[in-house]
Amino acid sequence: MMMNAHSPETASPVLVFDTLFAHQRTAALRAAIELDVFRAVGDSPGDVASLARQCSASQRGIRILCDYLTVIGLLSKEEGRYRHTPTSAIFLDPRSPACVASTARFLSNPAVFGPFKHLADVVRTGHTSLAGQGSVEPENPVWVEFAHSMAPMMQPMCGPLGRIVLDGQVGPVHVLDIAAGHGLFGIEVAKQASEAHVVALDWAPVLEVARANARKAGVENRYDVIAGNAFEVSYGGPYDIVLLTNFLHHFDPSTCIGLLKKVHAALKPGGRAAALEFVPDEDRVSPPMAASFSLIMLASTVSGDAYTFRELESMYREAGFELISAHPVPTGPHTVVVGHAARQNHRSVRQGT
Amino acid sequence: MMMNAHSPETASPVLVFDTLFAHQRTAALRAAIELDVFRAVGDSPGDVASLARQCSASQRGIRILCDYLTVIGLLSKEEGRYRHTPTSAIFLDPRSPACVASTARFLSNPAVFGPFKHLADVVRTGHTSLAGQGSVEPENPVWVEFAHSMAPMMQPMCGPLGRIVLDGQVGPVHVLDIAAGHGLFGIEVAKQASEAHVVALDWAPVLEVARANARKAGVENRYDVIAGNAFEVSYGGPYDIVLLTNFLHHFDPSTCIGLLKKVHAALKPGGRAAALEFVPDEDRVSPPMAASFSLIMLASTVSGDAYTFRELESMYREAGFELISAHPVPTGPHTVVVGHAARQNHRSVRQGT
Repeated sequence: MMMNAHSPETASPVLVFDTLFAHQRTAALRAAIELDVFRAVGDSPGDVASLARQCSASQRGIRILCDYLTVIGLLSKEEGRYRHTPTSAIFLDPRSPACVASTARFLSNPAVFGPFKHLADVVRTGHTSLAGQGSVEPENPVWVEFAHSMAPMMQPMCGPLGRIVLDGQVGPVHVLDIAAGHGLFGIEVAKQASEAHVVALDWAPVLEVARANARKAGVENRYDVIAGNAFEVSYGGPYDIVLLTNFLHHFDPSTCIGLLKKVHAALKPGGRAAALEFVPDEDRVSPPMAASFSLIMLASTVSGDAYTFRELESMYREAGFELISAHPVPTGPHTVVVGHAARQNHRSVRQGT
Repeated sequence: MMMNAHSPETASPVLVFDTLFAHQRTAALRAAIELDVFRAVGDSPGDVASLARQCSASQRGIRILCDYLTVIGLLSKEEGRYRHTPTSAIFLDPRSPACVASTARFLSNPAVFGPFKHLADVVRTGHTSLAGQGSVEPENPVWVEFAHSMAPMMQPMCGPLGRIVLDGQVGPVHVLDIAAGHGLFGIEVAKQASEAHVVALDWAPVLEVARANARKAGVENRYDVIAGNAFEVSYGGPYDIVLLTNFLHHFDPSTCIGLLKKVHAALKPGGRAAALEFVPDEDRVSPPMAASFSLIMLASTVSGDAYTFRELESMYREAGFELISAHPVPTGPHTVVVGHAARQNHRSVRQGT
């Protein structure tokens, strides 16, 4: 991680100025993605004149932008020609299947980026400067953008998540995918378990994206949807597995516990709830990517957070779960936290109905 | 430099996401400076409740902000209490004489920061999105902000610059400090050479800041000013030394040559012009800080740039200078480029009048 590539022991103003100028790195990468510079670099002789022509941009602008991208490691330059680095070739050239450039669209969405413009005010008040519930305001269109553009960031984590939640499952598996978004996690479970049936829950316009992805993956005949608010709609069920991917961090602990109780009630005895989360260590300042995610929740929600495992475990337990465990995903910054519905309590509740 | 702390040989999406999230680092540091967090950390027990009280901010906001500052190396955290790192103690606590926190005010000024919000448009057109001449529009008030807030960034370079320009000078020295700003460079020359007399040139409101600094330094009786546009006013003279600090990079080469000719005409034969500049290597992509400065000139000017030594040397030569040399400043990212007024030509011109 570049974030902690400095030595904390040496006093230097360089880190301060590097931090004050860091916004330029984001602006430069966004501009390059918007101008399709990474496609042009892969396509062309790589000289300033060719790139400027391909990107319909000025030569002065392209030269200075590409020099800057070279300084920050996202292009290379040899004898006046710009080339891909291994990273830009794989993760920024739109012709690469692993390209993550589309994530810039979600990350520059006003619902995500806007509050950072007046972060001091956000810190003063303690909650997002966005209206209402911020990014989780009902039917917020940002989640359609999320479903469209963030899939490439999540894709590498799908395989491991599928294996974690399916571990030990045999035969037909009923899966509820809450806040499904692009749907990739539930779809991956359907791909890994041929007898799995998945129900995706999200706002109706978001579900169109998930359904299209299910069709692309060839699992649409084992894929249903529930449109609406996860706190209000009936889940149906009972399910063997409930997925809660990138969801709990938007809410305060008591809201999470309420939701987890509802999830618990929709699970078969011994069924499992699996949350994909940024889980910082108990010190809350490591590892860097999981720990720094809290700042996005401060900026864009009223009371969300990146919860530690101890906090998530306590929420699961209060909601009636047992055998709660953390599974770091080797291919991303996330952790899967799995809890099991109590066999005893759950059975007695079901017997009582 | 964190900017190139990655290996260019290993493909990884981490650099891409770190770049897309880099704007948060700037926002967090600005918010902390605005809320006076670094003073509070130096003052208080360092727990969340105390810091929130001292900064008149929410506990949720302070906790998440300080955790984030810890992640990026600008605070440390031990047993739930935040402490200064060596860097934040010296360069961010306002009670430290080396504190550079005020630079955040200039760097977040709309004339500097604004164009980065739509950098793709700037790259398309090839020039600033600011009106007129951008940051160098006549009487732009941003230079009063610069004079007030950027002095701490320039202070460490004053001593070396003074020694470079005074090298070999004896007796009375007449100095013209063009675009003096805070005035610190000319003032330092007056401090190092007791018989030096300095004339500072800048917009009138900026000169008030320089004059106040000259008084503080006790050199006001050897300090005069010329208010106005460096391209239009008469320089007086002749001078032994003309300083051009952080000035040439705002203009295109032919404008720089015109100005250098005017400077040349105001120098005594053999007198020297000294430009303090960000001077990238001829590849324009190293060293990182000098090379990346071009992006700021793209964003905030019509045709400015960070010029290489070869380019500056050629401008000096066209303006009639000789014995042109580069002196990297050991205490900062800048280089001093010194050129000498031709003894022969200059004398003949003066004889002709």
